[in-house]
Amino acid sequence: MSIQNSPLVRKLGAYVSLSEPELEILAKFHKNRRTFADKIEMVYEGQSSPSAFILAKGWVCSYKILRSGGRQIVGFQIPGDFIGLRSVLFRTADHSIEPIQKVEASEVKVKDLLGAFQTCPRLATAVLWSASSDEAIVVERLVSLGRRDAAERVAHLFLELSARLKLVGLASATSFECPVSQYHLADALGLSAIHINRVLRELREDGLLTFRRGVVTFDDLDRLVELSGFDRAYLDYEGPMLN
Amino acid sequence: MSIQNSPLVRKLGAYVSLSEPELEILAKFHKNRRTFADKIEMVYEGQSSPSAFILAKGWVCSYKILRSGGRQIVGFQIPGDFIGLRSVLFRTADHSIEPIQKVEASEVKVKDLLGAFQTCPRLATAVLWSASSDEAIVVERLVSLGRRDAAERVAHLFLELSARLKLVGLASATSFECPVSQYHLADALGLSAIHINRVLRELREDGLLTFRRGVVTFDDLDRLVELSGFDRAYLDYEGPMLN
Repeated sequence: MSIQNSPLVRKLGAYVSLSEPELEILAKFHKNRRTFADKIEMVYEGQSSPSAFILAKGWVCSYKILRSGGRQIVGFQIPGDFIGLRSVLFRTADHSIEPIQKVEASEVKVKDLLGAFQTCPRLATAVLWSASSDEAIVVERLVSLGRRDAAERVAHLFLELSARLKLVGLASATSFECPVSQYHLADALGLSAIHINRVLRELREDGLLTFRRGVVTFDDLDRLVELSGFDRAYLDYEGPMLN
Repeated sequence: MSIQNSPLVRKLGAYVSLSEPELEILAKFHKNRRTFADKIEMVYEGQSSPSAFILAKGWVCSYKILRSGGRQIVGFQIPGDFIGLRSVLFRTADHSIEPIQKVEASEVKVKDLLGAFQTCPRLATAVLWSASSDEAIVVERLVSLGRRDAAERVAHLFLELSARLKLVGLASATSFECPVSQYHLADALGLSAIHINRVLRELREDGLLTFRRGVVTFDDLDRLVELSGFDRAYLDYEGPMLN
């Protein structure tokens, strides 16, 4: 795959028109591509000097385990996402990262990343934008857990994933492959798996969406947007700001 | 106040040893200092081309209003915080920002910010770290709303605020001035004001903490840390990474 078609470049390109030298640096980052099996942590909470990764294929989730044993999934990462960036900058991982399915990812060392920022400040700005976009996603999840009911939370999450996947060419207008289980959804949305199961059934019976055999299909997109109050503005996919 | 003693420089200095040229740029950012009255939005959700601000004095909160009329406070910002950074990078504000009390803040234009990154890439890295730190704070709030009970949420938030305020010289070991109301706490923690009131009373009666007349006092710090599972690692105040 040429670097121009890599999910990360498609994503960063939504914000910064990347020059040749910038593309070359990103191409270097895409070396050291490795395969990671599902359910084995790529990074664990408390790990010192962890690496960052550019996710090329497959989904991972990041989460924190509470002393009570409970788990809160902080987010799902998809191809093109920079994962573990905060852990690299912080020298210690403040969360765990685990593949949901077999994934392919390129390891990026902190030294190389900071070196790249030094020679290509626009790249630092692009990564800052990408980190801001990740933060906006966590903020929306916070709003969901604080002030949205269970059906709204599920609908909002699926609409967001659809928009993010579309940007990197992995979703059609009304459907996408979704490898997460009902347990993942429960741990991401502050609900129980039984509650998730009931909500998914209700959404299907109401003709809004179907989640079956790893595929999410929007049966009535307009009503889903209306129900969840989804406004894609926070994803900021409007075209390059830095030319 | 010399620029070295400004809260922002103290905060960024926790991550990057700032050079003379970098301090000069930050000093420029601190000009255009303005006063903002409480309860009047500095930035409103949906505003296009908003400015960013460096908060010098007083607290603000950032929030989103849902169509139901409910409000979710995304975070409290204190002196030294860069506010509205994401809105600047996104060209449209995805949340509102409102002073909780009279505040002083310096406006930073997007052009000047991006220009500074270009000439001082280390500054871009420092701001990226600062943004990552903000994200870590939102993540902890998400964990609270997803998997912590009401008392744990309140204790965790106060311990976090204390650590952040200490970094900029605005808290002692066991107490700090806290201008937020019980309504603010409710909207930040996904609870009702009545629930917050009851939890604060219980925490006080249990000898854990007292929140009275705008001052939070930790009556038993160890037990509070134990109760909330607070681990300050996610705030990453360990000393400069970039020398």
